[in-house]
Amino acid sequence: MSYYASPLAALVDELAKLPGIGPKSAQRLAFYLLKASSEEAKRLAIAITEVKEKVRFCTDCFNVSVNERCDICTDLQRDRSIICVVEEARDIVALERTGGFHGLYHVLQGAISPIDGVGPEDIRVKELLARLEGGVAEILIATNPNIEGEATAMYIARLTKPLGVKVTRIASGLPVGGDLEYADEVTLGKALEGRREM
Amino acid sequence: MSYYASPLAALVDELAKLPGIGPKSAQRLAFYLLKASSEEAKRLAIAITEVKEKVRFCTDCFNVSVNERCDICTDLQRDRSIICVVEEARDIVALERTGGFHGLYHVLQGAISPIDGVGPEDIRVKELLARLEGGVAEILIATNPNIEGEATAMYIARLTKPLGVKVTRIASGLPVGGDLEYADEVTLGKALEGRREM
Repeated sequence: MSYYASPLAALVDELAKLPGIGPKSAQRLAFYLLKASSEEAKRLAIAITEVKEKVRFCTDCFNVSVNERCDICTDLQRDRSIICVVEEARDIVALERTGGFHGLYHVLQGAISPIDGVGPEDIRVKELLARLEGGVAEILIATNPNIEGEATAMYIARLTKPLGVKVTRIASGLPVGGDLEYADEVTLGKALEGRREM
Repeated sequence: MSYYASPLAALVDELAKLPGIGPKSAQRLAFYLLKASSEEAKRLAIAITEVKEKVRFCTDCFNVSVNERCDICTDLQRDRSIICVVEEARDIVALERTGGFHGLYHVLQGAISPIDGVGPEDIRVKELLARLEGGVAEILIATNPNIEGEATAMYIARLTKPLGVKVTRIASGLPVGGDLEYADEVTLGKALEGRREM
């Protein structure tokens, strides 16, 4: 005999497939939804369905978009001479929140990772190169400061520098509000290396 | 300008309303669903909808059920002379997993908590008392071993003992595999108090 009523078991199973949701969390969420108002549950179910139906990737930069081209690519206020290269569309959200970048983006939809079988041809590098023809002066590479992100940054830099475009990399260093004492030596090394005159 | 395509923002908002899901997790889950197959997203949306449409509460014990009476209440193999009282339907799952209880259950759908404004009339105590008329010999109170659970247990014991029914409480003590050194003094006190002859 199963412990659960079967629609509940089905919901627990589906929730447990989500990243970072273990069996216990899935159970807690399922019971929460069972007790929630029908309206709330319905809104969630509709939101899931609509995100799959309505959201696609911008044909220029591969950001998420409801239209063929995303809000950033179609915004005439943005500086078209600089492209910030990121791994995932969610990285754009983080960068936009800073309010410090006004150029365009390019989402690679991944990073080079031989261990995971992801090569340069599996990410949107070809599409990035195609965009460089139209007056791009600088590529700011904002892939993650980890092994895969660094390898991807190196690869893109090697391909694009010969084309006469300026290639920059976001700075690594101590997080603001961080504590020198607790910084790992690699970060601290990067912070020393990247020191700037005051 | 919003950072997200609007259906994605709607999904992030809905996910962030779930318990234990913060804005960051909601964003991660939303992007996961965006990348997941349409079938997987659809299965989740359907599971959410169906749980609200098909699952209800057993009219006898308030366990979750697809039928009027739950699988446990309708199971003729179960011992009808003992009722285990729990706070939530999910507690039944935990108890059933032990394989150590073969009686019926009664879900209170909460615990007495004056701070949260939950009084005895807000939980299914009245319905429990109504069930005692049919040959119930023992009530095993398995509410949580915290303030609310203990208060609820005391309240139920006081009401039911005069009716001539045996009232028992699940044992508190050291968790199996736990370490005496790290046990809090209240648990350790309970473990001493509840000591059993070997």
